[in-house]
This record gives sequence, structure tokens and C-alpha cells, in this order.
Amino acid sequence: MSNYIRYSYEQLEKFCIDCFNKFGFSGDESRIITDVLLLSDLYGIESHGMQRLVRYHKGIEKGLIKIDAKPEVVFETPVSAVIEGNDGMGQLVSHKAMNLAIEKAKKTGMAIVTVRNSNHFGIAGYYAKMACDNGLIGMAMTNSEAIMVPTFGRLAMLGSNPIAISMPAEPYDFFFDASTTVVTRGKLEIYNKLNKPLPDGWALDAKGKGSSDASDVLKNIVAKNGGGIMPLGGETEQSGSHKGYGYGMFCEIFCSILSQGLTSNHTHTGGKGGTCHGFIAIDPKVFGDAAAIKEHLSTFLKELRESPKSEGQTRIYTHGEKEIIAKADRLENGIDVNINTVKEMFDMCSYVGLNPVDYLGDVKFEDASESSYN
Amino acid sequence: MSNYIRYSYEQLEKFCIDCFNKFGFSGDESRIITDVLLLSDLYGIESHGMQRLVRYHKGIEKGLIKIDAKPEVVFETPVSAVIEGNDGMGQLVSHKAMNLAIEKAKKTGMAIVTVRNSNHFGIAGYYAKMACDNGLIGMAMTNSEAIMVPTFGRLAMLGSNPIAISMPAEPYDFFFDASTTVVTRGKLEIYNKLNKPLPDGWALDAKGKGSSDASDVLKNIVAKNGGGIMPLGGETEQSGSHKGYGYGMFCEIFCSILSQGLTSNHTHTGGKGGTCHGFIAIDPKVFGDAAAIKEHLSTFLKELRESPKSEGQTRIYTHGEKEIIAKADRLENGIDVNINTVKEMFDMCSYVGLNPVDYLGDVKFEDASESSYN
Repeated sequence: MSNYIRYSYEQLEKFCIDCFNKFGFSGDESRIITDVLLLSDLYGIESHGMQRLVRYHKGIEKGLIKIDAKPEVVFETPVSAVIEGNDGMGQLVSHKAMNLAIEKAKKTGMAIVTVRNSNHFGIAGYYAKMACDNGLIGMAMTNSEAIMVPTFGRLAMLGSNPIAISMPAEPYDFFFDASTTVVTRGKLEIYNKLNKPLPDGWALDAKGKGSSDASDVLKNIVAKNGGGIMPLGGETEQSGSHKGYGYGMFCEIFCSILSQGLTSNHTHTGGKGGTCHGFIAIDPKVFGDAAAIKEHLSTFLKELRESPKSEGQTRIYTHGEKEIIAKADRLENGIDVNINTVKEMFDMCSYVGLNPVDYLGDVKFEDASESSYN
Repeated sequence: MSNYIRYSYEQLEKFCIDCFNKFGFSGDESRIITDVLLLSDLYGIESHGMQRLVRYHKGIEKGLIKIDAKPEVVFETPVSAVIEGNDGMGQLVSHKAMNLAIEKAKKTGMAIVTVRNSNHFGIAGYYAKMACDNGLIGMAMTNSEAIMVPTFGRLAMLGSNPIAISMPAEPYDFFFDASTTVVTRGKLEIYNKLNKPLPDGWALDAKGKGSSDASDVLKNIVAKNGGGIMPLGGETEQSGSHKGYGYGMFCEIFCSILSQGLTSNHTHTGGKGGTCHGFIAIDPKVFGDAAAIKEHLSTFLKELRESPKSEGQTRIYTHGEKEIIAKADRLENGIDVNINTVKEMFDMCSYVGLNPVDYLGDVKFEDASESSYN
């Protein structure tokens, strides 16, 4: 692992909190942002933790993310709300929005909060988990800069449009968080940093043909030259491309459509992020005995894990299991951060006027290639 | 098309209504069942219309479907209900359940109705459309006999678990209805009737290895020998198998978990169907101006259709467009029914004591192979 440096959770936490503090966020705000980002690294979703910091750094630098923005509730009923994000930091707008959904759902049984004019919010699962930690079913979704090419198209029109859902269960909660594209842009960024060719069935070039060139696809996405990532289900209807595209639309409905915000194809244009999110909280109590419902889910998850394995496989995972295992491991043994990402973290430290060596140690960057993000 | 016979909508409608009437359903009930089944054929979802009749016939014959069952609301709040289906005909239980969700959503803004101990309900989209026709966002889901093998497994544990969502738009509503498996069992039944090998990435044999043999896979599903259909996203995590499996779980939560009914792996055992459904209705009005929201969605759908096409493609569809086109064509020109399916319809007519020739004409069955369903 010569291309990785291992840090403890506490080291990365201190680094993040101090950096975001220096950017101008309050102590509480910096802690919320840090908590979202580091849960991603703890859960093994490397693409959305430290690896993604450079995008927040650039977003703040370019003015897409406004540090002192205050999100406002602009429409509200007992079961719903629309929040105007005022170009605030996505994690802060979303933390407020999901808390509002939870508060409403505890009173009425269920609630949907839709958000416009926000920014990248980290992993959707973080917010679904907030509801789950309150004994509710939580869902969280976001649109994003367009990266998904619709079936038979050649221009990215939808975002990675993840849908997360979490629900209380024993011994670990059900936790599903996935983009509606085959893979996320973050996954392409990792392949690019590792100089690895992309597998078939992931990405399209500017003409709408299959491509294994991560660097080219990423550049085309930024320049809006055409091409991008395929929907879950790949390129053709035979493998279910129209289904991933449909789930992408599902996400768009709860984010940009209900909030009357920017659809993915219009976000990240004209010096504006404009990202939209959707949050749903549902109290199982409105369907009967919540403890019995939780037990019923736990039984099914256990049956799935214990069901017969395919030849050569030793384990069937239920959603959330891998994340719990990864978290325990990383809290004990530390988090490996790619050397190129560490370089970006050094840049960010210097930008805000902190000494990176104090936080991240004395690192030699011979192995690091150029930063992939511009 | 020598293997197909073309019938007018009215011919099939009369055939269906009279058959279900003869089974013992009331006139109104027979019309609801017929409307669900024929919308499927009109929409070009051949697998769930006349092709599926034999399963209802067998279900009634075996006592899985109880003709005089009365669904009961066993738990209720202003935003939710749990319905005990009492082994009734899925279409009738579901029609009542979605009507209840619509009624509640019109008062409170949104509602979820979950159903247990029902039977196969036809296409999920029918019920999502019911809400959409009332100006609401509609969602419908169902579990089913286990056919989906979880990632790394070899035994089917989840159903085809379709999720449908529909929302008002111009010139045609958004309408997405898809199984969370790569394809449905109905698609395998069609390949079997046509004696065509299955494409790669669809199905698994009893050991959990890829299979192109539709007949073998279908027999194994019925006998619960192992094997089945892959989740959307195929066999490996690289192509997103765990995501299709996750959407299958999403569906299961709103159907079997919240209703405390049978999870897919326990349905269709011991002479019982036990199918569970979930229905959601959401009034866009609780997010602001419903007309403006509808226009916003319509604009995005138009942008998608008009976006640049991949080399060699002439058209990008939005969800619901193909169905509207198919419906207009079939209402005008008739509906093609596979000869093997017509044979099953003849059998059903004779079973209930009607003369099939009166409804379906004088058909020669030299071309028909054995019925695929036992």
C-alpha cells in the first residue's frame, strides 16, 4: 500500500474540523460537515470522503458554495416542506432538512422535505441513517452535475442521482445507498488516480459509445462535451438500462421536480451549483407494532445471509453489513488515504493557512501524480 | 406473425369479463380485473396480460385465490393503512388499497397503504396510474414468488419485486414500471414459449451459475431447486448486482415488512399465495403550485427526449411514452396474442363452461407447443 497513507479517525477529524473552521464555518457546522465526510470513509465509500474534499475546496473558492448561507423553509405543511438552500454547504442544508422531516414524521407518521439550490451533500446514506437512528425509515436522494446518459442518448442529462434507504434492524440496520448510475463519478476519479482502464459497461465517450478511458470521460463531463456514465443496467434495454434511467428519474422527482429547483442538466452552470435533494422519514408505528416490524425485517435479513451461496462464494451480504464491518475495522486500525488525495489535503490546509504537517505528518509526494480535478 | 392471433380490445374485454364472471366474481369485480389485465396488453407489457391468465386460472383452481374474499383494513391512521387481503384476487385487493391511499392523500397530502395475504396483482403500473389520473404521484410495488437470487446466492429469495411510479406531465404522464430483477419471470415464459435461449446476464441455474435455458430455470423456480433470475445489475458487484438486490429490498420493505406479511421467500408455499403489496400516493400540492410542478416535470421530459442521440439511435424515450404509443396503436389495430396463450385461453373458457369459439374464433393449434405452466 505504498500509494496510501494510514491515518487515525481522530487525526482526520481534527484536520477536517480545523480546515472547515478556517473556511469560516462555525464549530457546530464544521463538526456536521466532518461527520458526514468521515462516515463515508469509515463505511468504505472512499469516493465520497477525503477523496471528495478537493471539490468542496474548489466549490468554496469559486463561490458555488456560500459559507454564510442560511437555508429557508419556503413552503410547509404538517407532512412536507420545501427548503431554499441559498447556495449553502450541502451537508448543512441537508442536516437541517432531514431533521425537519424527522420532526414532522414523529408527529404525523411520515414527511417529505425537498430542497433546491444546495450543493453536493456527501453520501445520501448519512441522512437516511439520521432517520433510522431515530427509529424511522429514512430515505435520502440528491441530483448532481449531469453524468448519467439516458438510454440511447449521448449527452449526460441526469446526475449520479443516488437513492438511500435505511430502516432499523438487528444486529445491524438495513442501509442501502447507491447511485442510479452503474457507478459513481467518484469511482471513475479513483480509476483515474490509479491509471486503471474502466470495465466494460460503465462509461460512454462523446459519441455515446462505450469507453474505458476514465480521464477522457471525466474531462468530457466537466466540459459537457457528451458522454458520461451509463445508468444501472448498462447500455441496452436488454440489460435493463431503462430501469437505471427510471430510478434516476425517481430521484429527480423528489429532488428537483417537487422543489421546482434545477434538474441535473441545469445544475453546475453559470457559476452556480444548484443541487437539489429529497428527504423522506416514515414512522413504522403508523403500520402497527414498530418492534414487531423491526423483528420481521431482522428475520428476513438473517434468512438472506444464511441462504445457500453460489458456487465459489462464501457469504451473502445484506445491505449495511459491509459498512458496519468496515467502520469497526477503520475505527480500530485507521483509514487509508490515497497519496494523491493526501496531496489535495495538503493544498487545502495551505489554502486556509494551516500547516499540513501538523495534521497529516511529513509526507513525500514523489509517488503522487497530478491532481485529477480542475 | 403466424404464431400470433390478432384480437380487438373489445373481443378480449368481453372474453375476460365473461370468464371472470363465470368464476364467480361480480360484474364490477370482473371489470376491474379485466381492466388491469388489458392495460398491460395495451401498454405492450405482453408478459402480464393475456399471457398471465393461466396463472389466475390455476390460482383459483388450486384455491390460492379465494373468489369471495373481502379485504379488511386492520390498522389505520390518517396517513396509513394495513390491509389484510384474506387471499383475495390481487387486482381487487389492490384496487381498494390504492383508492384508500388516494383518498387519504387528498386529505393529508400523502399516504402509504401496505397489504398482506393477497395474490398476483397484474402490473404495478396500473395502480400508480390510478393515483396519477387523480393528479397525484402514485407508487405501487409488490413482492411475489421468489425468483430473484441475491448477489452471491444460488437460491431465489426475493420476488421480481417491481416498483412503479407515475406522475402527471404533458403531453403524457411519467410512467415507470419495472421489476427490480433484470427481467421478469413473464419474459422468461415468453422466451420459453418461443424456444429461444436466454441472453447472458439474465438467469442462474441451480448452482448459481449463468444459464440460458428458460425451461430449466422456470422449472427450478417452481420446484425451489435453486437458481432464478439475477437482480438488475446482473451477477457481480462490478455491474451493480447489489443495487438491483437493494431495490428488491426497498420493495419488500413497503410490501411484506410494513404489513408484517410473508416475505417473497415464504409466499407460494403450503397452498397459499400470501403476496404483499405497497401503495403510495402523494399530492404535489403539499410542495406548492401543482400546475407549476407538473410543467417543470414536462419541461425536463421534453429536454430528455430532445437531447442528442447516441450514434445509430434516432430517439430517446421518456418513461410512459412507449406505453402511450402502444396503447393508441393496439386500440386501433388490435392486440396480437401468442398462439400458446390463446390455447390457454381456450382451456380457461372450457373450464368455466363457456364456448371459446364464441369469443376467440375457430383456431387451429398445430403450431402450439405444450403449455409452459404447471
